[in-house]
Amino acid sequence: MADQVRILGIAGSLRKASYNRGALRAAQQLCPEGAKIEIFELDGIPVFNQDEEKQPPPQVIDLKKRIRAADAILLVTPEYNYGLPGVLKNAIDWASRPHGDNAWDGKPVAIMSAAMSMGGGIRAQYQLRQSFVFLNMDAVVQPEVAINNVGERFDAQSNLKDETSKKLIRQLLQSLVQKVRARKQEIRAAA
Amino acid sequence: MADQVRILGIAGSLRKASYNRGALRAAQQLCPEGAKIEIFELDGIPVFNQDEEKQPPPQVIDLKKRIRAADAILLVTPEYNYGLPGVLKNAIDWASRPHGDNAWDGKPVAIMSAAMSMGGGIRAQYQLRQSFVFLNMDAVVQPEVAINNVGERFDAQSNLKDETSKKLIRQLLQSLVQKVRARKQEIRAAA
Amino acid sequence: MADQVRILGIAGSLRKASYNRGALRAAQQLCPEGAKIEIFELDGIPVFNQDEEKQPPPQVIDLKKRIRAADAILLVTPEYNYGLPGVLKNAIDWASRPHGDNAWDGKPVAIMSAAMSMGGGIRAQYQLRQSFVFLNMDAVVQPEVAINNVGERFDAQSNLKDETSKKLIRQLLQSLVQKVRARKQEIRAAA
Amino acid sequence: MADQVRILGIAGSLRKASYNRGALRAAQQLCPEGAKIEIFELDGIPVFNQDEEKQPPPQVIDLKKRIRAADAILLVTPEYNYGLPGVLKNAIDWASRPHGDNAWDGKPVAIMSAAMSMGGGIRAQYQLRQSFVFLNMDAVVQPEVAINNVGERFDAQSNLKDETSKKLIRQLLQSLVQKVRARKQEIRAAA
Repeated sequence: MADQVRILGIAGSLRKASYNRGALRAAQQLCPEGAKIEIFELDGIPVFNQDEEKQPPPQVIDLKKRIRAADAILLVTPEYNYGLPGVLKNAIDWASRPHGDNAWDGKPVAIMSAAMSMGGGIRAQYQLRQSFVFLNMDAVVQPEVAINNVGERFDAQSNLKDETSKKLIRQLLQSLVQKVRARKQEIRAAA
Repeated sequence: MADQVRILGIAGSLRKASYNRGALRAAQQLCPEGAKIEIFELDGIPVFNQDEEKQPPPQVIDLKKRIRAADAILLVTPEYNYGLPGVLKNAIDWASRPHGDNAWDGKPVAIMSAAMSMGGGIRAQYQLRQSFVFLNMDAVVQPEVAINNVGERFDAQSNLKDETSKKLIRQLLQSLVQKVRARKQEIRAAA
Repeated sequence: MADQVRILGIAGSLRKASYNRGALRAAQQLCPEGAKIEIFELDGIPVFNQDEEKQPPPQVIDLKKRIRAADAILLVTPEYNYGLPGVLKNAIDWASRPHGDNAWDGKPVAIMSAAMSMGGGIRAQYQLRQSFVFLNMDAVVQPEVAINNVGERFDAQSNLKDETSKKLIRQLLQSLVQKVRARKQEIRAAA
Repeated sequence: MADQVRILGIAGSLRKASYNRGALRAAQQLCPEGAKIEIFELDGIPVFNQDEEKQPPPQVIDLKKRIRAADAILLVTPEYNYGLPGVLKNAIDWASRPHGDNAWDGKPVAIMSAAMSMGGGIRAQYQLRQSFVFLNMDAVVQPEVAINNVGERFDAQSNLKDETSKKLIRQLLQSLVQKVRARKQEIRAAA
């Protein structure tokens, strides 16, 4: 179907049993009809070095290709030290470079977080939103999906079991899909 | 001399000709008497993975040892995508883990930035300050050293030549040294 | 004309010769065809008191009515003490209350700033963007219009004379109008 | 006693039954020996207008006098629309002006918040911390006192009853007093 909405989902943690990977798997299940989430794993992406940005490692080439092929992005972030994890910011930095070749440019985006700390990761979310201003990414405003009390809301396999969170994720994805559709219509109207 | 103040300086970029590495070299020259800046290079530190935090790579073990041996920290940060570079946040994350073994705990810290963007890197600086609340690091408040117009303020070898910036760096380091001395006195008084 | 886009413009300063009032007047002149900026002056709005939110002063009743009548909002903010001016935040707070009667809900919004400080007011802008997440306002992402060096860019009557800033304001308003149009289309499509 | 530490406490809400006023009253009771919290009420301070900053209203003259007479500041803030309330920021703005007459300059400060929202007011706290960089105020780093679930933690008269919060407030005030003492010693040593 021509209008299938393709969402690229990225979790900002390398931990195998990561709650954020679990939240991303849940999002895959909760994706509204006519849309699909494919997951990109950050494992293997090295630390960014600007001296190498014109010959990026193969994982970065692949990441940029998959971002460009997607209609929208879903970022799922833990919160480390009251901020964005280095691992996620590092991937964002790679895919934004070199200057003039920002793969994120113009992409609609939605964000979620899961974190032990009070706030459920909102500090990391606001740092993402600030980066979006530079990256030129149009972020879904509401609902805010910030999952705290992770010990209770995920099961022992880090699968999300909390129904309230699931409902919010469903709404978030619907808003994202709506943003993609409005954008496509706008582009068609302008053509 | 017993009271020599040892400052560990870290630049948040791996680029060889980095302006931030240049600003850190300048700080070394401008360090007030009775204090000394040693540089730790972030090259070779891999991306953080919580599954490996109890057997960290040797560079991280070394980083944590050198943080603990220092009286104070000087962080020199570029700004990537309106935020902290992944490479610097990644090093901060490693050295803060595992839970209960945060090497940054209690360290006085000063921050500087050099960036092309308007603002000279202040967005990255505020993200550092937010992390310090979690890390329990006591940051110098003023002066703010945020070097913009980097093309004019550094020479072709990325050495800082701007006199205003040098004066501010000198003040920043004096404030840092003063913070370390006040802290030592306080600890002695409490003993 | 049915599709005329009505923008409510608010400058966050009570100073008569305010640069931000000047920037808002400039925006009025630069407004794209098919759109119009009406100005709401914050003078006379008292300090918010939650005990009075159910019988708000007449200026607040008027503000909320005019927000609701508008298709979009343009906020023009100075930066006081590295943050949003109390005077602007106070107006935002009034119009968001009482609970369940948030006049800003769902409005597309664009932001501009003029400030003496390095950065031209971006710190205030990011605080606005953070409030928009709660208020449910969809903000234009780019361009960022943050006017620094105000002494050079405005004339003695606080009229904006800088051509680069004017060009950016024109783009900002076009993006805002486009957002309003896309939104209307979306609502029609859903109906 | 010469070394009595005088703390000026300010709650950022005008609501009579404000939880933040309640938290400030609790802090008064929990103040460590040798220190004392006096409360300044923000009622009656008008909205800031830069045109009047050289002839400020009497409440502002009084506020600035009392800030200057204090050894330290305690700010207790609600969170409105994911940010600092206009009413508190407005008072901060008045007391920081005119240029060169910033009453907050150099004051040690501690912050607390009480808020219904997830996070207990931390978003407002970080905006305060950002303003402190400009105002040159040295803020206590830890503990963070951010009281959420206010309905359970305060009684019907908005008095704080939660023991965990009380313990944290006690620690916060001890850290503030320690900061004041270290500062005085430092000033004496430099004399």
